[in-house]
Amino acid sequence: MTSTQATDKTLRIGLVGTGFMGKAHAIAYHAAPTVFPLSASVTCELLAEVTADLAEQKARELGFRRATDNWRALVRDDRVDVVDICSPNFLHKDMALAAIAAGKHVYCEKPLALNATDALEMTLAAETAGVKTLVGFNYAKNPAAQLAKEIIAAGEIGEVVHFRGTHNEDYLADPNVPHSWRLKREFSGSGTLGDMGSHIINMAQYLVGGISEVSGDLKTVIPQRPVAGNPGAFAEVENEDQAHCLVRFDNGAQGTLETSRIAWGRKMGLTYEVTGTRGSLVFDQERMSELKLYTATDPGHRAGFRTLLIGPDHPDYAHFCVGPGHGIGYNDQKAIEVRDLVEGIVNDRPLWPDFRAAFEVNRVIDAIEQSHAEGRWIRL
Amino acid sequence: MTSTQATDKTLRIGLVGTGFMGKAHAIAYHAAPTVFPLSASVTCELLAEVTADLAEQKARELGFRRATDNWRALVRDDRVDVVDICSPNFLHKDMALAAIAAGKHVYCEKPLALNATDALEMTLAAETAGVKTLVGFNYAKNPAAQLAKEIIAAGEIGEVVHFRGTHNEDYLADPNVPHSWRLKREFSGSGTLGDMGSHIINMAQYLVGGISEVSGDLKTVIPQRPVAGNPGAFAEVENEDQAHCLVRFDNGAQGTLETSRIAWGRKMGLTYEVTGTRGSLVFDQERMSELKLYTATDPGHRAGFRTLLIGPDHPDYAHFCVGPGHGIGYNDQKAIEVRDLVEGIVNDRPLWPDFRAAFEVNRVIDAIEQSHAEGRWIRL
Amino acid sequence: MTSTQATDKTLRIGLVGTGFMGKAHAIAYHAAPTVFPLSASVTCELLAEVTADLAEQKARELGFRRATDNWRALVRDDRVDVVDICSPNFLHKDMALAAIAAGKHVYCEKPLALNATDALEMTLAAETAGVKTLVGFNYAKNPAAQLAKEIIAAGEIGEVVHFRGTHNEDYLADPNVPHSWRLKREFSGSGTLGDMGSHIINMAQYLVGGISEVSGDLKTVIPQRPVAGNPGAFAEVENEDQAHCLVRFDNGAQGTLETSRIAWGRKMGLTYEVTGTRGSLVFDQERMSELKLYTATDPGHRAGFRTLLIGPDHPDYAHFCVGPGHGIGYNDQKAIEVRDLVEGIVNDRPLWPDFRAAFEVNRVIDAIEQSHAEGRWIRL
Amino acid sequence: MTSTQATDKTLRIGLVGTGFMGKAHAIAYHAAPTVFPLSASVTCELLAEVTADLAEQKARELGFRRATDNWRALVRDDRVDVVDICSPNFLHKDMALAAIAAGKHVYCEKPLALNATDALEMTLAAETAGVKTLVGFNYAKNPAAQLAKEIIAAGEIGEVVHFRGTHNEDYLADPNVPHSWRLKREFSGSGTLGDMGSHIINMAQYLVGGISEVSGDLKTVIPQRPVAGNPGAFAEVENEDQAHCLVRFDNGAQGTLETSRIAWGRKMGLTYEVTGTRGSLVFDQERMSELKLYTATDPGHRAGFRTLLIGPDHPDYAHFCVGPGHGIGYNDQKAIEVRDLVEGIVNDRPLWPDFRAAFEVNRVIDAIEQSHAEGRWIRL
Repeated sequence: MTSTQATDKTLRIGLVGTGFMGKAHAIAYHAAPTVFPLSASVTCELLAEVTADLAEQKARELGFRRATDNWRALVRDDRVDVVDICSPNFLHKDMALAAIAAGKHVYCEKPLALNATDALEMTLAAETAGVKTLVGFNYAKNPAAQLAKEIIAAGEIGEVVHFRGTHNEDYLADPNVPHSWRLKREFSGSGTLGDMGSHIINMAQYLVGGISEVSGDLKTVIPQRPVAGNPGAFAEVENEDQAHCLVRFDNGAQGTLETSRIAWGRKMGLTYEVTGTRGSLVFDQERMSELKLYTATDPGHRAGFRTLLIGPDHPDYAHFCVGPGHGIGYNDQKAIEVRDLVEGIVNDRPLWPDFRAAFEVNRVIDAIEQSHAEGRWIRL
Repeated sequence: MTSTQATDKTLRIGLVGTGFMGKAHAIAYHAAPTVFPLSASVTCELLAEVTADLAEQKARELGFRRATDNWRALVRDDRVDVVDICSPNFLHKDMALAAIAAGKHVYCEKPLALNATDALEMTLAAETAGVKTLVGFNYAKNPAAQLAKEIIAAGEIGEVVHFRGTHNEDYLADPNVPHSWRLKREFSGSGTLGDMGSHIINMAQYLVGGISEVSGDLKTVIPQRPVAGNPGAFAEVENEDQAHCLVRFDNGAQGTLETSRIAWGRKMGLTYEVTGTRGSLVFDQERMSELKLYTATDPGHRAGFRTLLIGPDHPDYAHFCVGPGHGIGYNDQKAIEVRDLVEGIVNDRPLWPDFRAAFEVNRVIDAIEQSHAEGRWIRL
Repeated sequence: MTSTQATDKTLRIGLVGTGFMGKAHAIAYHAAPTVFPLSASVTCELLAEVTADLAEQKARELGFRRATDNWRALVRDDRVDVVDICSPNFLHKDMALAAIAAGKHVYCEKPLALNATDALEMTLAAETAGVKTLVGFNYAKNPAAQLAKEIIAAGEIGEVVHFRGTHNEDYLADPNVPHSWRLKREFSGSGTLGDMGSHIINMAQYLVGGISEVSGDLKTVIPQRPVAGNPGAFAEVENEDQAHCLVRFDNGAQGTLETSRIAWGRKMGLTYEVTGTRGSLVFDQERMSELKLYTATDPGHRAGFRTLLIGPDHPDYAHFCVGPGHGIGYNDQKAIEVRDLVEGIVNDRPLWPDFRAAFEVNRVIDAIEQSHAEGRWIRL
Repeated sequence: MTSTQATDKTLRIGLVGTGFMGKAHAIAYHAAPTVFPLSASVTCELLAEVTADLAEQKARELGFRRATDNWRALVRDDRVDVVDICSPNFLHKDMALAAIAAGKHVYCEKPLALNATDALEMTLAAETAGVKTLVGFNYAKNPAAQLAKEIIAAGEIGEVVHFRGTHNEDYLADPNVPHSWRLKREFSGSGTLGDMGSHIINMAQYLVGGISEVSGDLKTVIPQRPVAGNPGAFAEVENEDQAHCLVRFDNGAQGTLETSRIAWGRKMGLTYEVTGTRGSLVFDQERMSELKLYTATDPGHRAGFRTLLIGPDHPDYAHFCVGPGHGIGYNDQKAIEVRDLVEGIVNDRPLWPDFRAAFEVNRVIDAIEQSHAEGRWIRL
């Protein structure tokens, strides 16, 4: 009977923020080393929250060694290699710049910044410092999305000529849901565009390529919301509830992008349909383990969309399960993201989507807002 | 044993054109009087085709009493009450104006005209003459579409805030499909916008209301096609293969409309998703007998899109079948359309969509084209 | 301008019964000659109902020339070539035998008889008399079912090894639905087995082949129902609400068949899944215009069920519509059935499913009942 | 900055076997403490494999502290609290009995034993020793299955009257897949019945209750398979490729169960449809994050199956993700199973499904086999 040895390399994580995303990251840190053969072990080293008590409680819950109520201490901590930013959007910039200044790699949730100017500043800082960056556009890590990318890259559907993407949810569809920081421009920037729209913009860029022009339209459907804890009080909603745009891609393809936070019935409504000159792909994240493929090579009387159930013959799935169609879950996407993080840093390989890729998302958001404001197409 | 009596009123049809739509209309004329209790009997009186032989052959096949190779004779024929125009788009105007001049009611296939100017001329002529008109936007006659309308009108999904509609097919996706009249501006006007886009524009107007502004983008993806019967020869495609636009409705709702004739895998891809302040509707014409409904009134833990299978509790279905979910087919929509035609004419009631409603479709098409040409929003 | 000529051959129909099925047949008689090129014209000659008034009213509604309250007169009428029996099940035998005795061809709704003994007597009478017979198992006429048959016959899914079929509806799921003739053995024989089970038994025989052994189980879930028009009174339900069985086919395949009239949510729940040694088929009549096909020949990483939308490349569809995926409806199946009827009689070709094929269905029903009663497998 | 404390209780795991299931268990041990608030910490203490090298390699990969090539040493190890058996089926009995004899709690993969006799011996041993047991019927841990149970238990679909369940896959559909231990009675007992059928039997018992009678039929479709590494050699397949049965439940409900390992196209084909007197449920594990519900309380014209996307309002989901519809994966089910294991042991609460529940599954399997052999219904 023998004791097993750890790998000699270790990546030590400093996590800032423990809401929805902070927990998802923590689950991924604990699961990924068992799911994947990693080039380094991962240590959940330090966790920052707004109070010491909360930080300690969350560190226990999420399996972190140490806790702090001071994120500035965290980004400087000697035993932290990667700063993982899961705080509200308006804090991303200061935290990332501080982490970069301290020479840390940065793993940041999306959207990277409140606007493209900030995103560019962060990008340039990281590139100058030579640290690795990764932004949490996790839906592109879904094996089904990777498969879509693989099919497109291999030319199986020919040249892409159209992309229709949505990311619609209904978490604010009820007008009685109270006001929050997400509805203030100061803390969130745009509304659904940054929150969910950023995912479908990233997906469009991943699957089709760069976006060169947009014509957009925004709308705040519910102008005021009740203030929690203050009966009878209402606060103004400062950013859009729904947004959509026409896009033109660098490669000539056309597209539409749509996002809403008030789309009743849509719970995880990230969908896309990619039309090529030789076939098509259809995807719906609510059925995240399947991808529909139509290819012009099938004879007409036997042609139809095939429902591909993701399995071990597709990207990354086999690490989770050897049986096909057994199903990938939301957090599994984050485990893949953590795998990418670890492998990119330890082996000094490019990470995607890095700050620059996330800046490209922010650029599109800004262009959509400008297009709406000016009532015309905006060239990026 | 007794002989049964015909109703004393009869509507005599003169059909021009016997392609896809001409046959569908003929099937409907023969089926509708059995499906529905009609206020008049229907006589398939006279049929016009380009040659006498073809006209006679088609009259036999489609159950018409008489045949002619002269459509001008048909529109003047004393025994014709309704002129039914199923000819290529560029002929609609002359035929309709001639029929109107002869005092005939006109049932015309869509799109009504090659452009809004012609459509308006036809509309004004009909209104001045006081004849009834009906245009074949049959997807609005689908019981599922009528149910969607009923649900929206009753406020069951609240105020409509977003509409996403498509009508995509793939009948020209293969670049080897030869050139045809549909690809020449002279004979068809716009491309997929008029052919299929007109259906989804009409549906948007039916379900949501008037469209006040558009920002559109068009693309001819396959610029040339082989000329049938002339090996090696290619002809230019003069209109768009795919088109899409942002729209703003009169009532403040936003929307996107999309159409393509090269969308691999889509065979009858008329789809819509209507988001309201209290619920949503999702429809796909490839599953034409079902409508998905989400209502905010369901408790959260039991809320989800309901798949309503169209049955006798829904509009018009019971006339076809007393068993729910037994299924409506394409031609059944035309039978409903014929029922509307007969009842509207015999009882002197408004018909919808009449020439004016179809003119509104043509106006939107023209505005999309103008928007594309000028790169800006167009207010209708 | 010329008058068109009728074909010189005519088939004159005598219809008995004008409920759900009688109307469906009438619609088909009027539509089929336009949909299909038929070898004879069809005349709706004579209609019988239980009273003279009702018969006259229905003849007007359904487009029949003459009416009678005497079905025995109808079957003897000189101007009737085909007796079409759409009356309640218990009347099929007397009517069919009388029609056969009068030398008429017989088109009869399913189930053919209350039991196999009667069905055999009817079959032998028809065969001896040399008249044509057809039984209304219309779901086998659905182009999707014909396509399934074609795919199986061509060996595209290899040898069939398993068949799972259901025909479940919920029209009696509510215990407040009143008692009716269908629930009395005297008038209906078996319950859901004859009413809907007969369809899925017929489908199994169509797609896989003869059934050699069954092990069945039946249950009357709702033992009493209110008597319509007699408040407080209840009558006993004399036959089964749900039934299912294991089957063994002549060719060695296994299967299960299931039927229910109390299956909440199923409106037209005729479904089948056919597993072969090289692929599979999945079908659901609630989506009657699509068939799912999986073939082992697809490479593993691109294999999945294909949704084939029925179109002009598939059996019979092109006669209804030249556009693929535009959708077949319930009554279209009956039009195909009428086409088969006309062509079989006029060209003296075999009809399927004839009385003998329907007798095979009744045999299986009887065997299931016997298996249930005796608690053992029954060999047919 | 503070160091976080571990909970004072720890459960130390000894894992035997590191194939498909061993890895899934390991992932769950690492993820569960972050996903759930657990009453004890979990230590991956010791791992056994067939050779020392493999054991050490797997211990490193799966995050276990120590490794051994001697499972008998593992079950006796002082630092092991729970013996987790993920070895081939024929080893379950000896390992479980040894673990029980050593006073260890046992977590065992399914099927518990090769037959009911062995399963009962194991059950009685565990009950006598007073150790906790849990068997890996993980599909019952899926939040969607728990929701189905909750809906049934609350009477939302009334009394259950019918259950149709399948667990079909196609991993042996290709006759060129080589022979393996699963195909020998000595090592596997039954074929697909124990491998996948056990899951759907367990699910039927979970959702509906005890099974009192069965009538079953089995078939070995592919009688021989190639021997891996021995070109030209074939070995006999000793157990069934497909099996199905009729069942009667203690509460009077009827059902069918079906399982196949050669069902082309089905990758994770565990499905069920539960019909009650007031509604129905439909589930397909290939879409594991959704459950379809039909309730008789909806008004007829708005009634339809609702697709419930599993979210935080449903059992256990909120621990994984606060956003609804974001998706549960295969391994998440195992994390729930581990949560049950830990909480049951630490708080001395009943575990389900324990050995006795798994024995009930083995009893049904044996009864199906006997029914097939004797050609009659078997009462359990």
